[in-house]
Amino acid sequence: MPERIPLYLDCDTGVDDALALAYLLASPAVDIVGIGTVSGNTSAAQGARNTLDLLALAGAAGIPVAVGAHDHLDHPYGGGAPHVHGENGIGDVELPLAETEPDPRTAAQLLIDLSHRYAGRLHVLAIGPLTNIALALEADPTLPERVDAVTVMGGSALAPGNITAVAEANVYNDPQAAAALVEADWDVTLVPLDATMEHTLSEAQRTQLLLAESPFVQAIGAILDHYFDFYTPTYGERTSALHDPLAAVLAVGAVAPTRAPRVPVVVDTSDGPGRGQTIADLRGQRLGPRDHDGARVRVVLDVDAPVADHIVEVVLAG
Amino acid sequence: MPERIPLYLDCDTGVDDALALAYLLASPAVDIVGIGTVSGNTSAAQGARNTLDLLALAGAAGIPVAVGAHDHLDHPYGGGAPHVHGENGIGDVELPLAETEPDPRTAAQLLIDLSHRYAGRLHVLAIGPLTNIALALEADPTLPERVDAVTVMGGSALAPGNITAVAEANVYNDPQAAAALVEADWDVTLVPLDATMEHTLSEAQRTQLLLAESPFVQAIGAILDHYFDFYTPTYGERTSALHDPLAAVLAVGAVAPTRAPRVPVVVDTSDGPGRGQTIADLRGQRLGPRDHDGARVRVVLDVDAPVADHIVEVVLAG
Repeated sequence: MPERIPLYLDCDTGVDDALALAYLLASPAVDIVGIGTVSGNTSAAQGARNTLDLLALAGAAGIPVAVGAHDHLDHPYGGGAPHVHGENGIGDVELPLAETEPDPRTAAQLLIDLSHRYAGRLHVLAIGPLTNIALALEADPTLPERVDAVTVMGGSALAPGNITAVAEANVYNDPQAAAALVEADWDVTLVPLDATMEHTLSEAQRTQLLLAESPFVQAIGAILDHYFDFYTPTYGERTSALHDPLAAVLAVGAVAPTRAPRVPVVVDTSDGPGRGQTIADLRGQRLGPRDHDGARVRVVLDVDAPVADHIVEVVLAG
Repeated sequence: MPERIPLYLDCDTGVDDALALAYLLASPAVDIVGIGTVSGNTSAAQGARNTLDLLALAGAAGIPVAVGAHDHLDHPYGGGAPHVHGENGIGDVELPLAETEPDPRTAAQLLIDLSHRYAGRLHVLAIGPLTNIALALEADPTLPERVDAVTVMGGSALAPGNITAVAEANVYNDPQAAAALVEADWDVTLVPLDATMEHTLSEAQRTQLLLAESPFVQAIGAILDHYFDFYTPTYGERTSALHDPLAAVLAVGAVAPTRAPRVPVVVDTSDGPGRGQTIADLRGQRLGPRDHDGARVRVVLDVDAPVADHIVEVVLAG
C-alpha cells in the first residue's frame, strides 16, 4: 500500500465543499491532517462550524479545523452566495451541533505548522478563495519548499466565468491572493470551470447518497438539494457541477486529467472588466497539449473519466 | 436580383485583407463604395498603396481609397506585423505600381460622406484596428443612424488571443477604438478568432488561385505564400486562417453563422493583463444560443459552412 498523502484542505464549506470533504474522508489515498476555512460561499466562521459539524457526523472529529480569513486581502467579505449554498452555506440543512471547537490557530498558521510536520510530503488542496494561502506565503515565504503539491479549484481558462463573464468565484473573491498563489515557487494544479462544469452529479446519484446507511452520507445528499435547484436552469435538469469534488479527485490522484498543459497563468488584479480572470496562455495548443518551459501551473482543461460515478462509489464505500 | 449592398471597407492591407478584397470585388451581392486604411498589419499609408495597386490590377481603380489613421487613439503605430504579412504588408510581393492616388479625405471623413450618400443602406466592414471608425463616431455621433450594419473581424470570445493570451490583434492595436465601436448604437456582428481560426485555405486552394487566368487572382495566390509559412507551425501544415475573408463572407450574407448570440461585449481598455480582450458574456449558453435583451453585438462563435470553398469559387468566378 502506498503511504497516504497528508493533505491540508482550505475550504469555504459550502455545498460542494461538503461533498469534497466526504470524498476525501472516504478516500484510502489521503489523510486530511488539517483544515482551514476562509470566507467565500459563506463566512470563514460559518464554514468552520459547518466543517466541524460534518466531521463529527462522519466520526472524524479529531481533525483540526482552523478559522481562517474573514476578509480578503484588499476588500471585506461580501456576504457569500446564499442563493447558491443556502443561508448557512450547506443548503440550509441543520446538522447536529458538534461539541468540537475550532483550532485556536489561524488557518495560515495551521498550514505553516503542518508544512513543517509533513515537510516535503504535504499536499495543499484549496477549494475556496485563496486568502489563507496568500497569508501563509506572506508570513513564511519558505512555505513552498515544504509543500509537495498544490491543487486549486478556481478560475476559468477558456470557459465563461460564473461571477463575471470571465471570472470564477474563488478567484474573483480574492484576485490578489490567487495571484500570490500562482506566482509562488511550487507546482500548482489549477482546476477551472472548463473542467468542473463538465462533471455533474445526477439526481439518481444524489438519491443514492440519501439512501445510504450513514447519517453523514445522508446529510451530504440532503445538503445537495438546494444546490441542485440552483443548477437546474444552467443544465436543464436537476443536477450540479462538481467543482470542489473534481479538484479533490485530482488532488488525490484517483483520476488523471486528459488535457492539462503547464502554461503561464496570470491573475487579473486590476479594477477593469477582467478583474479576477485567470489568464492562461493557451495559444499554440491546436496540435495538442504543449507545456511551456518553466511554467509551474498545470491548467486542467479536460478530465474524461466518469468522475461522478467514482465520487459516489468512494463516498458510499467509506 | 436584390440590390447590391453598398459597403465601406476599413482595412490594413495585409495578406488576408487582400483575399477579403478579392472576394468582395468578385461578389455579386456587394458594391465596395469606398475604402479606408488604418495602421495595423502595416502602416495606413502602405496599406493604401497596397489597396490601390490591388484595385488597379483588378480593374477596379475607380473605388476611392482614403488613408486613415497612422496612429491609434492613445498610442502610436507599433510597426505592424512583418513576420506575418511581410515587410510591405502583402507578403513581400511586388505589385505593378498603380497610377491612382489616395482620396484626399481622411478615412473617417470618407465613411461619414458615404453614410450620407447611402443613408440607411451602408454596410461597414472593418477588418483592421477600429481607429477610423472611432474617429468617425467622434466626429459625427449621428453616424450609426445612417449605417445599416457593421461587421468587424476582431477579438476573441472564448478562444485564445493571437497577440496576448486573451487579445486579438485588431482590438489589441486600439482597444479604446474597439470600445467606442461596440458601445455605439448600431448592430454589430463581431467575427472573432473563435470562428476565424476554424476556417482555413489549403495549399491546393492557393494553387488554384496561382493558376487562375487573372493576374490579380494570381497575385492574391502569391501574396498568401508568406502567410502560409507563418501559419504552418500553428496548424501543422501549409495553410492559413481566413480571418478577414470570413468577416467579408458574413458581411455579404453569403453564409449565415451557425451560432452567434447577441450578448453584452466589453473591451478591456485597462493597462492590465487583459488589455485588448473582447469580454463577451457567454454565461448561460449551455442549452443553446441565447440573446440578451438589448445587446447590439452579435458574437460569431461558429460557422459550419465550407467557407474556404465558397471564397475560392467566388474569387475564381469573378
